[in-house]
Amino acid sequence: MSAQSVAIDAMGGDFGPRSIVQASLACLSATPSLHLTLVGHPQLLEELIASQPAVDRSRLHVAAASEVVGMDERPSQALRGKPDSSMRVALQLLRDEQVQAVVSAGNTGALMALSRHLLKTLPGIDRPAMMAAIPTRGGYCQLLDLGANVDCSAEHLYQFAVMGSVAAQALGVERPRVALLNVGTEDIKGNQQVKLAASLLRKAQGLNYTGFIEGDGVFRGEADVVVCDGFVGNILLKSNEGLAGMFAERVQALFQSSLMARAVGALAMPLLKRLQADLAPARYNGASFLGLQGIVVKSHGAAGVEGLQCAIDRARDEIRENLPQRLHGRLAQMLL
Amino acid sequence: MSAQSVAIDAMGGDFGPRSIVQASLACLSATPSLHLTLVGHPQLLEELIASQPAVDRSRLHVAAASEVVGMDERPSQALRGKPDSSMRVALQLLRDEQVQAVVSAGNTGALMALSRHLLKTLPGIDRPAMMAAIPTRGGYCQLLDLGANVDCSAEHLYQFAVMGSVAAQALGVERPRVALLNVGTEDIKGNQQVKLAASLLRKAQGLNYTGFIEGDGVFRGEADVVVCDGFVGNILLKSNEGLAGMFAERVQALFQSSLMARAVGALAMPLLKRLQADLAPARYNGASFLGLQGIVVKSHGAAGVEGLQCAIDRARDEIRENLPQRLHGRLAQMLL
Repeated sequence: MSAQSVAIDAMGGDFGPRSIVQASLACLSATPSLHLTLVGHPQLLEELIASQPAVDRSRLHVAAASEVVGMDERPSQALRGKPDSSMRVALQLLRDEQVQAVVSAGNTGALMALSRHLLKTLPGIDRPAMMAAIPTRGGYCQLLDLGANVDCSAEHLYQFAVMGSVAAQALGVERPRVALLNVGTEDIKGNQQVKLAASLLRKAQGLNYTGFIEGDGVFRGEADVVVCDGFVGNILLKSNEGLAGMFAERVQALFQSSLMARAVGALAMPLLKRLQADLAPARYNGASFLGLQGIVVKSHGAAGVEGLQCAIDRARDEIRENLPQRLHGRLAQMLL
Repeated sequence: MSAQSVAIDAMGGDFGPRSIVQASLACLSATPSLHLTLVGHPQLLEELIASQPAVDRSRLHVAAASEVVGMDERPSQALRGKPDSSMRVALQLLRDEQVQAVVSAGNTGALMALSRHLLKTLPGIDRPAMMAAIPTRGGYCQLLDLGANVDCSAEHLYQFAVMGSVAAQALGVERPRVALLNVGTEDIKGNQQVKLAASLLRKAQGLNYTGFIEGDGVFRGEADVVVCDGFVGNILLKSNEGLAGMFAERVQALFQSSLMARAVGALAMPLLKRLQADLAPARYNGASFLGLQGIVVKSHGAAGVEGLQCAIDRARDEIRENLPQRLHGRLAQMLL
């Protein structure tokens, strides 16, 4: 199998460079075909690498960048004010074909702005979209857009549907069922953009478009790809994160509520922990930026080591599947 | 305490008249000040009443309506094509001051269209909103709009915030924290409507506006009233319903997965059932239509007897608090 080389923005994210280095080294050990370039302050990164168990340094490189994009910084500031940020340098390595993908846990808006600026979008794509997997009854589904685009036209939703379908295929779903998220499943339901997008998708050739899907249908596993604008996708994803957290907290409190409950809890907790791990956001971490001339994966800022590994694995899979090339080919046939 | 009289659309909802009659009689028994008028086919309703334990018939009336609005019917059809529907007759009783509130588990779009047509909105309100409670870490919060308005301007969101605040106060929260649902908490985040609504709310006098809230913040209990457009609210509510259902199913499957797991499950299930009951949608059932000249509560179509009781109780509380009058007074001061 050929090699995959990924540049990691080693300075971004809520957990800082230590977790990023740790996750990177774990991935290197697990995947012999993987080459990583850590981008950031060279001295700091070398120290962190040295503090970890030794790895094959022929597959691990460090690239220097003197600045860091802050988590709350405006995208415009990252774009114009920081010519040597770790995020930017990582993306430049990708643009210059030194690596095949970039993974960052940093500021999402800045990552999108820099990616568009440095890599450009694929022909016909107005706006890249963010896509990630969420667990459902049947397994998981890919949801997009997750926040890159807060105002979307029908044409944007159509483009997201085409890109989501191709990406889901690349990730192993044979004939992905693509659905549009809406407030009802009848034709008359929804806002203008959604209704118009539905009429475009109904006419699309070679797309397994199954119609509207409601919020509860997503978790019933009624589709493999669920399309919505970035505002709705972001709210759905985060509110579900919040609800899952509340569940976990209440279960814990419940099993502390009496002596008897504690005894039962001691028995039940290992089982519930397994469930929690199954549904944990970290296991599904890694949002792909689709529609760029290059592979960029955003890791959740608070995903931790396991989550970051998941994001690096996603980048590796997209390299193997040559996702931008596949998207390019399909978009040429499908776009309006 | 003075009496409360509520008309019940006895023909609407997924469960049909039998559950509605059953829930109505249970409410009558529980609340001595309550008077109910069941609206629908008189013979059928009398038979259903006779099949249940006897109640005080001086507080239970039947009003005749020969038609039923279908769950998938277009609102325009319900409005123009069915002059004698149970939904319409119930709302006419409210308009004619024969009752003080209407509860229906029927077609939401039709209920909103008929309510607006027959009751009219309060002065200054362009569009009524739907508001319901959802469980959070701190207790619960009121979320609006839930689907009545799929496209909202900043002014609509502002109106929802004012109405939600007044309604939450009427339902017992002293100084409700009102927040706008958004994809981030920084000022630069969000679509145009949300940013503009925020600038209007920051200037509003006498409103405890706390800024933007993200999807996960809702469940952390960061606000008492969460404002969003109906598209987003509907997706949030239904996706959370779906996720909760998936959790329940996975817990069940987990405790069936081995003999040992079954033994633990037998002990843990009663505790988990208590949790499920705490978080069950039925306990929080009943969405208030705010901004009308009259009290209308929508019960979830599939809420069952317990859920319907909850909705009837909500209508009773709104009558006691004289909610439309309070809204009217406050809107006169607050509206732009």
